[in-house]
Order: sequence, then structure tokens, then C-alpha cells
Amino acid sequence: MIAVIRHEASKQQVENLVSWFQARGLKTHVSEGEIQTIIGLIGDTSQVDVNLVEGLEIVESVKRITEPFKSVNRKFHPADTVVDVGGMKLGGGHFHVIAGPCSVESHDQILDVAESVKASGASILRGGAFKPRTSPYDFQGLRAEGIEFLLEAKAKTGLPIVTEIMSVAHLPLFEQVDVIQVGARNMQNFELLKELGRVKKPILLKRGFMNTLTEFLMSAEYIMAEGNPNIILCERGIRTFETYTRNTLDLSAVPVLRELTHLPVFIDPSHGIGVSRYVKPMALASVASGADGLIIEVHNDPPNAMCDGAQSITPEQFADLAEKIRRIREVVASL
Amino acid sequence: MIAVIRHEASKQQVENLVSWFQARGLKTHVSEGEIQTIIGLIGDTSQVDVNLVEGLEIVESVKRITEPFKSVNRKFHPADTVVDVGGMKLGGGHFHVIAGPCSVESHDQILDVAESVKASGASILRGGAFKPRTSPYDFQGLRAEGIEFLLEAKAKTGLPIVTEIMSVAHLPLFEQVDVIQVGARNMQNFELLKELGRVKKPILLKRGFMNTLTEFLMSAEYIMAEGNPNIILCERGIRTFETYTRNTLDLSAVPVLRELTHLPVFIDPSHGIGVSRYVKPMALASVASGADGLIIEVHNDPPNAMCDGAQSITPEQFADLAEKIRRIREVVASL
Amino acid sequence: MIAVIRHEASKQQVENLVSWFQARGLKTHVSEGEIQTIIGLIGDTSQVDVNLVEGLEIVESVKRITEPFKSVNRKFHPADTVVDVGGMKLGGGHFHVIAGPCSVESHDQILDVAESVKASGASILRGGAFKPRTSPYDFQGLRAEGIEFLLEAKAKTGLPIVTEIMSVAHLPLFEQVDVIQVGARNMQNFELLKELGRVKKPILLKRGFMNTLTEFLMSAEYIMAEGNPNIILCERGIRTFETYTRNTLDLSAVPVLRELTHLPVFIDPSHGIGVSRYVKPMALASVASGADGLIIEVHNDPPNAMCDGAQSITPEQFADLAEKIRRIREVVASL
Amino acid sequence: MIAVIRHEASKQQVENLVSWFQARGLKTHVSEGEIQTIIGLIGDTSQVDVNLVEGLEIVESVKRITEPFKSVNRKFHPADTVVDVGGMKLGGGHFHVIAGPCSVESHDQILDVAESVKASGASILRGGAFKPRTSPYDFQGLRAEGIEFLLEAKAKTGLPIVTEIMSVAHLPLFEQVDVIQVGARNMQNFELLKELGRVKKPILLKRGFMNTLTEFLMSAEYIMAEGNPNIILCERGIRTFETYTRNTLDLSAVPVLRELTHLPVFIDPSHGIGVSRYVKPMALASVASGADGLIIEVHNDPPNAMCDGAQSITPEQFADLAEKIRRIREVVASL
Repeated sequence: MIAVIRHEASKQQVENLVSWFQARGLKTHVSEGEIQTIIGLIGDTSQVDVNLVEGLEIVESVKRITEPFKSVNRKFHPADTVVDVGGMKLGGGHFHVIAGPCSVESHDQILDVAESVKASGASILRGGAFKPRTSPYDFQGLRAEGIEFLLEAKAKTGLPIVTEIMSVAHLPLFEQVDVIQVGARNMQNFELLKELGRVKKPILLKRGFMNTLTEFLMSAEYIMAEGNPNIILCERGIRTFETYTRNTLDLSAVPVLRELTHLPVFIDPSHGIGVSRYVKPMALASVASGADGLIIEVHNDPPNAMCDGAQSITPEQFADLAEKIRRIREVVASL
Repeated sequence: MIAVIRHEASKQQVENLVSWFQARGLKTHVSEGEIQTIIGLIGDTSQVDVNLVEGLEIVESVKRITEPFKSVNRKFHPADTVVDVGGMKLGGGHFHVIAGPCSVESHDQILDVAESVKASGASILRGGAFKPRTSPYDFQGLRAEGIEFLLEAKAKTGLPIVTEIMSVAHLPLFEQVDVIQVGARNMQNFELLKELGRVKKPILLKRGFMNTLTEFLMSAEYIMAEGNPNIILCERGIRTFETYTRNTLDLSAVPVLRELTHLPVFIDPSHGIGVSRYVKPMALASVASGADGLIIEVHNDPPNAMCDGAQSITPEQFADLAEKIRRIREVVASL
Repeated sequence: MIAVIRHEASKQQVENLVSWFQARGLKTHVSEGEIQTIIGLIGDTSQVDVNLVEGLEIVESVKRITEPFKSVNRKFHPADTVVDVGGMKLGGGHFHVIAGPCSVESHDQILDVAESVKASGASILRGGAFKPRTSPYDFQGLRAEGIEFLLEAKAKTGLPIVTEIMSVAHLPLFEQVDVIQVGARNMQNFELLKELGRVKKPILLKRGFMNTLTEFLMSAEYIMAEGNPNIILCERGIRTFETYTRNTLDLSAVPVLRELTHLPVFIDPSHGIGVSRYVKPMALASVASGADGLIIEVHNDPPNAMCDGAQSITPEQFADLAEKIRRIREVVASL
Repeated sequence: MIAVIRHEASKQQVENLVSWFQARGLKTHVSEGEIQTIIGLIGDTSQVDVNLVEGLEIVESVKRITEPFKSVNRKFHPADTVVDVGGMKLGGGHFHVIAGPCSVESHDQILDVAESVKASGASILRGGAFKPRTSPYDFQGLRAEGIEFLLEAKAKTGLPIVTEIMSVAHLPLFEQVDVIQVGARNMQNFELLKELGRVKKPILLKRGFMNTLTEFLMSAEYIMAEGNPNIILCERGIRTFETYTRNTLDLSAVPVLRELTHLPVFIDPSHGIGVSRYVKPMALASVASGADGLIIEVHNDPPNAMCDGAQSITPEQFADLAEKIRRIREVVASL
């Protein structure tokens, strides 16, 4: 960490600040320039509050040199984390496709979709029971009943299931859920993250649509700091000024995250782009970028889907896409 | 609502869609253009799911004409909402300043600040007990103890208090809190909003730093739809590409929100800009823009504030600022 | 186009507006709703100024239904445009890689790079002679001399060349340049675009780093409206809040642009991400997304490159990448 | 400037880099941390190319400590620059309002508006002769004829005039123009900026709607580095995700710019918000924020304005606004 000192600061003030840092166990290097003095801090600065130091009157700005995340940092944990989901391995060179409808709508719907995506090679079934919707008047999900239907689909097909949690209060309903998803809007719901850190289940953490990768990793750090290392990161599109797509899929998140962290990185091209006819090219691009897996929305009747119909593809389209994903993945794995 | 139909759609498909809309109680107007056919929908479209309609294969795009919010919409409720806080009126031409530290740090600190901001004319005391922090290693607030200290300050000074809630599970601790704050990161924590709609206390809802005004109002709608009309909206800065300020204070939110909704609109220049020496000009600009009130961070020892010290001003600076606010407010009120 | 009329408008005012539209050759459909009246406009609305109509006191908002671009619109020109560059075909199923250094630095450098990228299969040589730099103190390019060096490299290798223009005044220097590039910062330099519309050479138009695809296509429309249809579109990254990458490569631009326009779509992953070790995964993802070609920065000595060294790869890395691009392209072309 | 060195770098590599910096006249301070080594650079680093250093394989990241701008930097030039426009002083505590139509439309229109804004206290007349429009089909301005009409209005009223330049080629037409405006879209048209640096006339430089304040000041630096110190900065709104306003007026630019630079800072609330009924509150907020002046669009017949009618107010509304501006300014000046 570097603290840039204001021009007006007296020698005494700088010395006081240096002592203050040293009292916190940090080594300091002071460089006096013609224009500005800077103090370099060496040691574990992850617990120094940047805002606090910036608030000091004699400090002009503070710049972090090392990342503020530790447990999820590849520097301190070079090997890939492999997350176990019902005996299946995610990350570490294993590639998987998660598929299913945006929302669980009925017993028959989720069973149907589960069977067809399994036949096409999906490894995990997704489906929303609790749905975060911008409007209170939009469909809010089947909630507890939706989870029951998912568990029936799991029992019938053997596919592990992933579904989103929206409140700590609902946690008991997730006991038999294989992977708990934290949605983009809850990425910085810190009380929820802490609670999920105490659970030992795999967590699928989605990137907030206006959050940086550092913020994303800090949210994963919240979970891991409480003791749960089973985290799957998922990029699902960020907000930009483009209006032809619902979000902009940030595929550069794949190489950057793979360098910064040991956690597996998935891509959700369906939410990332929000228009079903663009899902195929973006899914193939995601595979080529080196992602550890994909999440694809599949609906047996997209035009009547209760939510996000615009981004779902049919089981037939998914079968075709799954085959193409395999072919690109084969080349990428061989490169 | 307008649905733009794809070029390829058959006459039969368009007729089917028209019937589908009519079955939902909407009147339709079909305009066949040379290039495109559009269907105009008349009636209460706030419950039609835009995504669902966009998902239909024959639909190119959907454009809302009327706002999706109803209870908070000034069109249906022209008079200003006046929120009662301990007998004090907020909104409807009344102007108030809320002041206090970012975080409650100790019994003495909050008492001190409370007394000094009261002396300078603040109407309500703010102070964070539960603190949303990007890093799990940053100070997370005194939590339950912080609320106790706030209540003591309230007892001693008579100032009503406002403090932030981060989880439905903490609600019992807020029984004697006068105004419950929903922070920017929880603006779309829909389960929390629903729960606060069932409480009858005033809610101070902060705009998410990456949310549009429509999304902001939809979150207020979540609270109001559950029966709680006591909502104070607060703009606190949005994320932009500028790095000299922590956020960019969007003062145009004031005239726009005052036109769209009947709810009071406050501005938080301290968080909005994040640098204490810029708080004064932005506070004065907020008053001139026509805001119903301000929230100002005041700390008796900013350099040592446990969080956000960078944006706090001292009680002396606040006394000076409060006087200037009054002078600008006088002119604005007289214009 | 749809004009939403304000609640307060009188019947007479609406009728006047309808007559005004009809006088401009547009057919109108008026729909009177309970809450709002809307006027739908049918006919060629591309020449109606949205801002002007929005400025009318009785109009609440205006929404375009049809795209404002015509010549570049695939609806009116369904077949792919194939741009001829020195007998080589770009677009329409042909795939090409453009490669070369960010800046032309010396005669030997550009010759060296040209020969090595040609050997690895690049079809066109790139190199900056005029360099747009944020700082007046950064290297501004070799300018006229840089173009001479490029022409020598062209003469020696037979590779067509592409280089950026920054001012209409420099046009005479581009007489023997095969493709004239318009950089991201000049995407809305409308006087330059008009001038290039009068030239018959192929234009490589880069998307502004904060422009929407509609604005991008409107800039292409400026060139095509003046008579030059030889335009190659190039996505090169947009500005987002992410700081680990210089820009965020928006690969969804590929499927969206291919649907909206008949012009070829290239991707520049080097500028798009700005970090050389991320270029490979993003280049492969670009190919998988269905792009018509790539632009890759290659430098024989990246650490000493005069500009943008951070994003250049070496000729050896390019040879390896070119081979991988070919393998992904083969699969994509066969899908 | 700080260069953070990658973990893998050898001692020898670090020494080589240090020598390389020293050869460029910079003093260096090397701090070896447990995790990372950093090199601090002392001296004039404004001419060191950050991208070049970041491109070095052993460098992880580079952080600037001092601003890259010099001539426009208040650190090296503490006193306010006062720009002389026809004997009138701009900046340095003097406050002025520039007013006029978005576009010059006719001889009579500009005369009319000029006379009425002069009567209401405007100091300078604005009016667009060359108009940058997103669409080639929108009105492009009266061009040379528009400048003639402006000069006639100047002759008749005595008001100095400001109008926008779009190409170096048009410079001869601006000989009698008092202030040359560079529009937001040309803020990084570096060849134009250089040319204007050689002219001695005052330049009104508008901030690009997607540019940071650092980039804004670097563009001013382009002009000043060529010898022209007569620059007026103008914030006119930045692009954000909000759709109720055309742009988001960033008023925090006022206190930040006034701290960073000695140049006068104006605000254009008309373009900044784009909706005429919001101009008044934003104009008053601009004054309260401490701006050196305002630019207000005034049109004698806004509904029929050829461009940007949505944001123009009438001469009567301007007269009322000008009076309110004066009252707020009086209070601000006295605080």
C-alpha cells in the first residue's frame, strides 16, 4: 500500500503517520520527492482500511499494491480448487454444463426439461424457485414448492440441482439442494454471504451486474473467510450502455479470474446477453475463452416461460448447442 | 405498452397475439406499417411481464409507454406524501437535515456528535450500527450495541434516529428506531423490502449506486405494495468512470423524482462524493436543486473514524455548513 | 415512431400535431388510452428528429420503433457486403487476420514484423503512423514517415496495409494505403466520416469505447450515405468499471451486428483487453463468436514498444496463436 | 510513479529496470516486500509512458502518484486564470452567463434571441453553426452562413459570440468569433486541439460525455502545451445508465476541477440534462456548487427548434431564471 502525502504536511506529521503504521505491524519506506512524499507500506495490509487512511488530512490518496483478498487469492493457493458436487468434480480442468429453466413453473415442466437436458449431456439441473424480480407485480417464483419439484427432478434423473437463495430465513429449505446460488443482486448481501460461509455446501456466486472483479472476489472472500471454500464463480453479464443486449457478457473475466483466483469460473451466456438467438455464439465464445463450465437456460416452451423467456432456448436447440460446445471444448482442451 | 412485431410474422400469428392480450383485459390497437406492424396496448399494463412478451418469437421488441410503478406514482397520487417522524414532518415543503457519524463507535462518540449536530439545527441523528463493507476484514459495526448507544443518544437529545438494517433477522433490534434505512447495496434485496412493507415505520430507501430511477421507484413500490407508504427516497451517488470522487452525485434525480413520485427526496452528499472537502459545495448544490432534505456525515474525530472517515466533516464544519444551507434554502424557498 | 402525449394536452393540440406529422408525409395512428394518448407514425421516420418532437410541450416521450440507419441496415440489403482489399475478400464467409505493431517505429521494425506475420498467415499488415494519445507528451507517431515505412513493407511482402487517419488534412498521405482506419476516439468525428464517404477506399471503422451499436452504425451510415459502401466494422472494447483490463471486449457485438447490418465485423482483442497475456483466450473467443476477422497487435520487441506495449504479443506467440485461431475457425465454420 | 514488480522477477531483472529508469533522469526507491517488490520513481514522470512500463514482462502494474498534466495544474500555477473575452473577464471570481439557441436557424431568430438574452443579463451569445449530429439525416447546421448571422448579432448587440468548430479546415471562418467551442465528441480530436493551441483565441472546451476529469484536463493540456492558455472548461453531462435525463450532470466536477486546475469552470445544464423543465433546478444547483459561469440554451420558439428543442427554454423563462441565478450567486459569493 502506498500513501501519497499532501504537499502541506509537516515533517512531524509525516513522522507521526509513520509511527502509526509501524504500530500496526507494518514496515514503512518513506520516499521524499520534490513534489510529493510517499509512504510505502510493507506487510499484511489487507486489514488496513483504505478509507480511514484517505480520511487523514495530510494524505492525498492511497493506492493498494497487493490485492485485498487472501483466501481466494491464487498467489497464496496456487492449485485449482476442485469443487465436489454429488461426486462430480467442478474446476481443475473438468468441464461441465448446467442447464434448466429460468423458473420452476410446474412439476411436469421441470421433469421434462431435466430429462431432456440430461440426455443432451448437462451435468447439473438449474431452476429458480425464489425469483428476484424488479417489479413486485412480476412472478416471484413457486418458492418452497419450486424446491420440492426440483428435488423430485433430482430423484428421477439423478442430476444434482442448483437454485437461488434470496434470504437467510429460507436456508432450511435448501438442505437437500446440491449447490446454493447467490444471485447478482445479492452479491453484496454480506449477511447472507457470511451465513453461507458457515454452510459447507457448494455456493454458485454470481457477479453483480455492476461490480468489478475485485468486489466479486471480496464477496467470495466473505464466504471463504467463514470456512466454506466450495465456491464456483459465475460471470453473467454486466451493465453497459448497449441496449440491444440485456447485459454485456464480460468474457475477459475468464482469463483474469483464472489468474487471480484458484476457484472455478463459469459463464452464464443466457443472462449475460438476454436474447435467445444470441446464446449459441456467446456460449461457444465462452468455451473458447477457457471457462470451466457454462450455465444455459433451457425451457420446453420459451414463449410462455413465466420469466426471462427471451433468453431461453428449447431442448432441441440445447441438444444441438451441447454438441457444438463439446466440439469447441475438445479443440480448446487440446491447444 | 407497444409490441413491435417481426417482419416474418404471419397475419394469423399477429391475430393470436392480439387475442392473447385481450384475454388479459387489455385493449389493443394494431398499426400495420410498410416495414413493421406494431400492437399498442391500452389499459393497466403494469402487470404484463415485458420479458415474457419479448420472448415470443414474433416479437422484435417491447416498449413501455406508462411507468411500471403505481402506488408511488405521482400521476395517481398528485399530493406530496408527508412522512411523520416522531411528530416531525418530512416532505411537502418541510426541509430537514439528518446528521451524524458514518458508524457508531462508542457511547461517548455518538452522544457528543448528537449534541453538537442538534445544536447546529439537525433534526434527526444518523449512525451506522450494522455496516456493509466490501471486505470481510473491515470494521462491521457495533451491531446490537450500536443501536443501544443510538437509543441513549435519542433519549438524551430528543433527536429521532435513523440506522441501517442489513438482514430481516435483525428486525427485532429496530423496534425503537425511528427510521429504518435500506442501504444502496440492499436496494434490490426484495425479501427485505417486502418485510419492511409490513412494518409501519418510516423507511429511508437509498438508491443503489448502479440503479436507474425506475428501478429505484420499483423498489419503493415493493415496500408500498405491502402497505407501508412512509418512504423517504435518498440519492447517494452513482458509479461512473470518474475516479476523483467515490461516486457521482446525480442531482438531476431531484427534479425527476419530484415529478415522477409524491415521496420526499433527500440527498446524501457525503457518500455521494466521498471526500470531505467537497461536501460543502455539493450540499449547497443539493439544496438549490430543490431536495426535501440532506444527510450529512459528521464525526467528532474524522481522521480516526472507523469507516468512511474520508467523507466526514467535523461538528465545527457542520455548524458552519448548516448555516449556509439555511441561507440557500431560504432563497430557494422564496423563488 | 411513437409519440406519447402528455395528460394535459387538449384535443386541439393533438390534432395539430397529427397534421404536422401528416404534412411530413407520415401516416398516423392515434390511440387514446385512459391514462395516455399515443400517436404512432408509419412511413420513413428516419429523417424525423426525435429531439425536436420530444421538445414539444405536449409530448412526454418519443420512442423509435424502426432503426434510424438505412444504407447499412440488413433489412434493406440482406446479402453480406464483401469488401475487396487488394483482390482479397473480407466478409461474406471469408475469414482474415490483420496483424502488426501498434505503432510504426522504424523501417526495420515494420519490415521484420510484416515478414513474420505474413509467414504465420496474416492477410493484412497494420501499423500506426498517426497515434491518438491521451497525453501530448506521449509518442505521437512517425506520421508521414510512418506511412512511407508501411508502404515499403507492403512493397516487400505484398501485404495490403491498414493505418489510422486523424485529420482530413492528412488524406493526401493515404493515397496508396489500402484500408483507412478511423479510431475509436474519432468514431463521431462527423466531418472526417463525411470526407471518407467520398473516398472509395475500404474504411476500417472502430467502435467508440463508450458508444452503443446504434451510434456505431449511424457513423457507418455517415460514410455510406456519401457513397462509400466499403466499410469494415471493428469492435475494440468498451469502457466499463473493470480495472484489471483496459477495456471490456463486447463480443455480443458480433451476433448483434451480423443481424443488424450486412457489413463485415472484425474484433480487435489486443486493444479490447489491453494485456498481452489475455490476448490469446480473447482471440479464440472472438473466432468462436462468429467474427469475420481479427486484428492482433504483434511487436518484435514488446517491452520496448513505443506505445501500448502492454497489449502486444511477439511474432513467435502470434505464430502459435494463428495456428490455434485456424483450428477454432475450422470447427466454427463447420458447425 | 510506482512500478509493482512481479513475484517471478530475478534480482538482475529488477536492477536492469532500475538502471533503465535512472537513465531517464529519474531517482528510484526500491522497496522489497515479502510478497512484492515495488520501485518508486521520483522526478518528472509526466513524460514516462505508463503503458510502455506496464508492458514489461516483470512489471505487474504501474500507478501514477502525480497527475500527468502540468501546464493546467494548479500545483504549478496556483492563481486562477482569468480569460479575457472582448474585455470581459471570465474566471477568478467573475461570474457570467452564456446564452443562446442550440442552432443558428435564421438571421431573425439569432437577432431576436441575442437581444432578449442581453436584456436579461447574459454576457456572451452562443449559437451552433456547425452541428455534430448522430445521424447524417439530421440538420447539420447553417455552417458558414450561421457564423455570418452570429457576427451580425454581435455587431448589433455588442455581445461576444461563442460557436463550435468541427474541423481544422473550417478555422478561417472563425476569425471574428470571440470564443471557439470544442464539443464533447471532439474533446479527444487531438489534431484539432493542437491546432487550437496555436490560435490565441479563448477556447471553450467541453468535457466528453464519457471522459474522466483527468482525460478532460489532458485535452486542455494539449491546447496549453502549444501555447494557448485561454481555456474555459465546461462540464455538460456524462453518460450514465439513467434514461429520464439525456445525460447526468456531474456537478462534483466543479469543486474537483477548481482544486486541480487554475482554469475557469463553466456548467451547461441544458445539455447536461436535456429536458427544458429540469434546466432551472440544475442551473441553480450549478451556481450553488461554485461554478464560474453557466451556458443556457434559449430559443424564441423551442417546439420548432431545429435541434435539441427538448432542452431549450424561452426568453421569458430565461429572464426569470437569470434573476434567480443572480440571487443564488449573491448568497454563494457572500458565504
